[in-house]
Amino acid sequence: MKKIGIGIIGFGTVGTGVVKILKKNKALLRQRIGADLELKKIADLDIKTDRGVKLPNGILTRDAESLLNDPDIDIVVELIGGIDIAKKFILKALNKGKHVITANKALLAEHGLEIYRAAAKNSVDVAFEASVAGGIPIIRAMQESFVSDTVTGFSGILNGTSNYILSRMTDEGGEFKDILKDAQKQGYAEADPTFDIEGIDAAHKLAVLASLAFGRDVSMKKIYTEGISKITPLDIAFARELGYRIKLLAVCRGSEQEIEARVHPTLIPEKHLLSNVNGAFNAVFVQTKDVGPTMCYGKGAGMMPTGSAVVADIVSLARNIAHGVTNRVPVPPYAAKKMPAIKITPVKETVSRYYLRFSAIDKPGVLSKISGILGRNSISIYSVVQKGRHIHGGMVQIFMLTHEAKEADLQKALKEIDRLAMMKNKTMVIRIEDSEL
Amino acid sequence: MKKIGIGIIGFGTVGTGVVKILKKNKALLRQRIGADLELKKIADLDIKTDRGVKLPNGILTRDAESLLNDPDIDIVVELIGGIDIAKKFILKALNKGKHVITANKALLAEHGLEIYRAAAKNSVDVAFEASVAGGIPIIRAMQESFVSDTVTGFSGILNGTSNYILSRMTDEGGEFKDILKDAQKQGYAEADPTFDIEGIDAAHKLAVLASLAFGRDVSMKKIYTEGISKITPLDIAFARELGYRIKLLAVCRGSEQEIEARVHPTLIPEKHLLSNVNGAFNAVFVQTKDVGPTMCYGKGAGMMPTGSAVVADIVSLARNIAHGVTNRVPVPPYAAKKMPAIKITPVKETVSRYYLRFSAIDKPGVLSKISGILGRNSISIYSVVQKGRHIHGGMVQIFMLTHEAKEADLQKALKEIDRLAMMKNKTMVIRIEDSEL
Repeated sequence: MKKIGIGIIGFGTVGTGVVKILKKNKALLRQRIGADLELKKIADLDIKTDRGVKLPNGILTRDAESLLNDPDIDIVVELIGGIDIAKKFILKALNKGKHVITANKALLAEHGLEIYRAAAKNSVDVAFEASVAGGIPIIRAMQESFVSDTVTGFSGILNGTSNYILSRMTDEGGEFKDILKDAQKQGYAEADPTFDIEGIDAAHKLAVLASLAFGRDVSMKKIYTEGISKITPLDIAFARELGYRIKLLAVCRGSEQEIEARVHPTLIPEKHLLSNVNGAFNAVFVQTKDVGPTMCYGKGAGMMPTGSAVVADIVSLARNIAHGVTNRVPVPPYAAKKMPAIKITPVKETVSRYYLRFSAIDKPGVLSKISGILGRNSISIYSVVQKGRHIHGGMVQIFMLTHEAKEADLQKALKEIDRLAMMKNKTMVIRIEDSEL
Repeated sequence: MKKIGIGIIGFGTVGTGVVKILKKNKALLRQRIGADLELKKIADLDIKTDRGVKLPNGILTRDAESLLNDPDIDIVVELIGGIDIAKKFILKALNKGKHVITANKALLAEHGLEIYRAAAKNSVDVAFEASVAGGIPIIRAMQESFVSDTVTGFSGILNGTSNYILSRMTDEGGEFKDILKDAQKQGYAEADPTFDIEGIDAAHKLAVLASLAFGRDVSMKKIYTEGISKITPLDIAFARELGYRIKLLAVCRGSEQEIEARVHPTLIPEKHLLSNVNGAFNAVFVQTKDVGPTMCYGKGAGMMPTGSAVVADIVSLARNIAHGVTNRVPVPPYAAKKMPAIKITPVKETVSRYYLRFSAIDKPGVLSKISGILGRNSISIYSVVQKGRHIHGGMVQIFMLTHEAKEADLQKALKEIDRLAMMKNKTMVIRIEDSEL
């Protein structure tokens, strides 16, 4: 039986999951591939820590280069994360004629084009199911299931840490910073949580998905990104009263000419399936012309879910190798021929409904002043509730939902409102998504 | 560029969708395959009706055999449904060395083994994404995404017609037979709706999914199947009061040694994602060892969703043909080597929580009599509510939820209870699923 050599760079959480699965399912994988997977080398700077898996002598190495130079390794799995070193290893592997699997969304979002081109040039494959939403097979769905269809948009809960924090804030009514601290203790948030809570990780994943959905390169720099750190229990509670949940949502819609692409806290109707995606779970809602709306839901991270997605990619590439095929699923069209990155609508030009919370001194005329400024800027109010100062420490809180309005108009109005002497805090703004994309 | 010949047998709703997609997306498909798809022939008994698509002369034929004998046709798409004739055409196509795509769940559920074996023997492929849950890529997920994982169970809303009727009964409070009649008018239910409303269609799909999930042949005859025609607005309303929705659910759990496999109306907690799958939508919830719970949601039927799933299969097989590969995804293990069909636990031996509704004459001692019989049969009561006769025309309605109980014990108790003179109607029994499988 044919043997297919596997090398893994990065023996952290996901790497350990991959090795565990390769070991425990060896016979199953042989049957499902028609070839034997042989784990040849694992490179990591730390070769001392016990990961709880027994390995034959000589498998572990601190020298990733030795793995790239090993002629018996057919597939290189990159799991170190980060940009520069990961990119160097991947390009070298591709140029040496090795197939590559990566879970590195940051790298693909920033340098996907270069990587896909190197794969195509060398007639090898690059697979990356684990880069977006862990165990959810959304990359395969985009590349193989909606392949005859035209995606018109997608929205997703793509960051488990933020969703875990927002879910707990919703269930317990706690403050963001307290729940973040506890999430860090529980292992749901990293010591430096910036990428997760500021929406950067979700934006990376949005970029990867959008490039597949619309067949064009997507510039990370132009994706509007806003995190969840300013969300308060007050906003969550009031959104709930109105029949909404607050989620960190990645939203993308458009065509291959131009897309909207943004990540921000969002009010979603509680009846929407995405509203019921809680804890560390992820979900991607996709809208296409022929299939219509679909949603996939599952664990977005973790040793075994993400490890399983990596091994599914290993199986896919191993099936190709066993049959002597490469590039069966072609590289994205923008990698095959020169095309500029897709146009991303500047966020100022986008249109949305908004949730607004104004904190003002309790004086007559506050509401009339605010609504006057909104009206002059073409912001039409859908509903408004004012809650007295006895509840909120001397301030009145005015909660407002708007009809659809242009972001530029809203920003102009808020600049004027926030300058008023009667305003105690900067106005809280959260977008509402209640369309089906 | 290589040309790949397509022949379609069955020019009904789905067939028309397939042809529309092949026409409108010709350039896109060429780019995504790296070969040209050529629609060579469409066979149907009715070649007169205008389907709203223009076809070159000579494409339409009443003679399916001519299509099977055409050496220029590489892929035969079977969309006529039914068992005998479809099977004959498919086996003939496979034996002639043609790849086959089918949306025929009934045929696969009854004769899948024979078809997979014929495909393997002739080194050709058979693809059937459209056979289960239309536009939802659940077949591909089972074959390629959970490929390194062990499925421990799945549950699904697999029949759009039943789900449409139950959703409307839930929203409007109407009677089953009235809403069925209206669904027939609206085109959501067929003139003879038996397969859909009696759970047979869902059982076919369960069999197809279970055979992939557990890698063993599944005997349709042993799948317990119960339809929705006896569900009343009373049951739906009371389930709702308790925080449940009633869905026609296909439930399957176990291992490759033995599974439970059943289709029946089911109380699902309203917080569960499946509870929010409404109208003609389908969803499949899968539990695996490594990835954990996942769910896929989308349109389970219709010209374009199902058509799109068929074309995704065409792309997959065309990519294989363009690269000279066959059986890249191997046939299920039970087709490759002789194994008996998987053991299906007799329903009498299964354990479940139950919703029970007793209709009795309003006399003292009714509740004590019923609960006494239940107790003697090891059925433990979780909660009970009795509603007076002024509401329900002279009868008292006793609603009960049980703890987990064995089906055989329950049936024994109910036989005794339903014989009591005080009972007005047969007791209503609905299973509850509140585990994560």
